[in-house]
Amino acid sequence: MSARATYADWIAVDWGTTHVRAWAMAEDGTHRAEARSDDGMGALSREEFEPALLRLIEPWLGAGITPVLACGMVGSRQGWAEAPYASVPARPAELPPVPVATRDPRLRVAILPGLSQKAPPDVMRGEETQIAGFLAEAPGFDGVLCLPGTHTKWVHLSAEEVVSFQSYMTGELFELLSERSVLRHSVARAGADEDAFLEAVTEALSRPERLAQRLFSIRAESVLAGLGPEVARARLSGLLVGAELAGARPYWLGREVAVAGAPALAALYASALASQGVAVRTLDADPLTRLGLARAWAALRETTT
Amino acid sequence: MSARATYADWIAVDWGTTHVRAWAMAEDGTHRAEARSDDGMGALSREEFEPALLRLIEPWLGAGITPVLACGMVGSRQGWAEAPYASVPARPAELPPVPVATRDPRLRVAILPGLSQKAPPDVMRGEETQIAGFLAEAPGFDGVLCLPGTHTKWVHLSAEEVVSFQSYMTGELFELLSERSVLRHSVARAGADEDAFLEAVTEALSRPERLAQRLFSIRAESVLAGLGPEVARARLSGLLVGAELAGARPYWLGREVAVAGAPALAALYASALASQGVAVRTLDADPLTRLGLARAWAALRETTT
Repeated sequence: MSARATYADWIAVDWGTTHVRAWAMAEDGTHRAEARSDDGMGALSREEFEPALLRLIEPWLGAGITPVLACGMVGSRQGWAEAPYASVPARPAELPPVPVATRDPRLRVAILPGLSQKAPPDVMRGEETQIAGFLAEAPGFDGVLCLPGTHTKWVHLSAEEVVSFQSYMTGELFELLSERSVLRHSVARAGADEDAFLEAVTEALSRPERLAQRLFSIRAESVLAGLGPEVARARLSGLLVGAELAGARPYWLGREVAVAGAPALAALYASALASQGVAVRTLDADPLTRLGLARAWAALRETTT
Repeated sequence: MSARATYADWIAVDWGTTHVRAWAMAEDGTHRAEARSDDGMGALSREEFEPALLRLIEPWLGAGITPVLACGMVGSRQGWAEAPYASVPARPAELPPVPVATRDPRLRVAILPGLSQKAPPDVMRGEETQIAGFLAEAPGFDGVLCLPGTHTKWVHLSAEEVVSFQSYMTGELFELLSERSVLRHSVARAGADEDAFLEAVTEALSRPERLAQRLFSIRAESVLAGLGPEVARARLSGLLVGAELAGARPYWLGREVAVAGAPALAALYASALASQGVAVRTLDADPLTRLGLARAWAALRETTT
C-alpha cells in the first residue's frame, strides 16, 4: 500500500456525452491525479451520475467535504441537473455554477452553465470552459478562436468576453458520410493527402453550393477512375472544411485567429486557413478544459471569500 | 387451383440495393402480374441472385425459355454481373444489355448498363431506365428531368439523349441527419410545414455556404426556443433542397423542368422550384422503370428481328 493517498483540495470534472474525465486539483490550480471512464452523460440516467462520479473520484476524497466543479453535457436537460445557458456576451470564466444535491455528504457538486446566443440561435456546453482555458493561456486575446470538433465552434472574443459564436456540424457530417453513407465504400478509415485536401478546400470555398454534388462525385470518381481511398478521405474532409470556411468567412477574414483542437485536426484547419492567406496560432485543446475549470474555480474563490 | 397460370412473354426486373420488383410482361408492353421482395442486391452474394430471382418469377415461367431484362444495382460491380456504364451522351432506351449466365435453362437474363459521365465524374444505375420510361411518356421532351431520391439526379435531355447529369446526396443527407445526427432529438419522423420548408429553401438558396451552421441552428433553436419537431423537419428538408437548388441552378434556370419521384417528394421539389418562379410538371416515378424496361425491350426486338 502506498504510504499516502492522493488528496484533492477540489475536483475538476469534464463530463461529456461519451466520456468523463476528472482531476484531483490542488488549491494553486495544478493537478495531482487524473482519472477517466466511459460513463458519458449519454449513457446515464439521472440517479446514475453520483455513483459514476464516486467510482472515479472516491480515492481522492478525505473525511471532510470536497468541492467538485463540472462542465459539459452533464449540465444539459438530459444530464445530471440542468445548468441553464448564460447568454452572450458573457465572460466564460465567470459563469455562476449551479449546485447539485448529492446523497454522499462528502461531496459538494456544482455544474458550470453553457453559453447560448439568441440570433442566430446557437448553444455550446463544455466549449465555454475550453475558451476560459484558452484565455488563461492567451490573456487579452482579441480575435477569433476556432474549436474544431463534432460541432465546430467559431468564437469572437474581445475584452475577455465571448461576443458571438457560430457552430458548424462539420465533424458530425464527416463521421456520418465517411462511416454510414455510400461514401464509406470509397473513403479510407485513416490517412491524409494535403494536396487533395487543399484542392477540395479551395473548390468548396469558391462554390460552396455544389457541396452535395461534389460529395457524390467522390463516389463516382472512385467507381469510374479508381480514386484512391486516402485521396477520397482528404477530399471529403476538404469539401466539408472548405464549405465551413465559406460560411465562417466573416469570422476569420481580417481577424486574429487561433485554432484549438486535437493536434491533427487543428493542423488541418490551420493549413486550410493558411491557403487563404490567414496565419493562425494552433493549440492542443487537451489541457484547456482543466485550465478553464481551474480559472472558474479561482474566480469562484474570489467572489466567495 | 386457378384454371390458368399467369404466363410471361418476358419478365422485367427492377433490382435495387434494398428491394427487387418483377413484372410478368406481355409482348405489347403491358404487364400481367407483379411481384416484389426484400432480396435487394446489397444483401446477396453473387450465387444468390439466380435463386432469389426464381423465388420471385418461377410461377410465370413456361416450358421454353423466358427472357428476363433487369436494371439497377444488380448490374454493379458488387451485383450479379457487372454491366459497364455507358458514357453520356447516350440514348437511355437503347443501351445494349449485358447477358448473364444462368444454371436454369428456362432463363435468359440480361442486365441494362447504367450511365456515366467523365467530367464532372458521375454515375447512375436504374435512373437511366426511369428516364427511358419518362421519354415514353413525354416523347421529344427537351429540358431537364429531376429525379429526387437518395441520390437526386438532374438530367439534361435533348433529342431523346441524356446530354449531361448531376447527382446530389440530398436524400441520403436528410436520412443521416434526421435519424443519426444530434438533430434526431429535434426533428419529427413525419409531418410537413410548407411555410417553414419554403423559408428554409429561400435561405439556403441565397446563402448556401451557411448550410452546416444552419443545420446546427435547428438543434439550438429546438433547445432554446422549443422549435416544433414538424417545423424542424421541414426546415432540415428545406435547407438541403435549397442548397441543392443553388448548386443545380444552371440545370433549372430558364429550362423546361419535369420532376419525377414519389408523389410527396416530387411535390416538395415542385413547390421549391415554384418559389423561384419555375413551373414544373410532376410525375409519379413508380411506373417509369417498368415503362423504361418495356421501351428497352421494344428497342431490342427491333434490332434483333
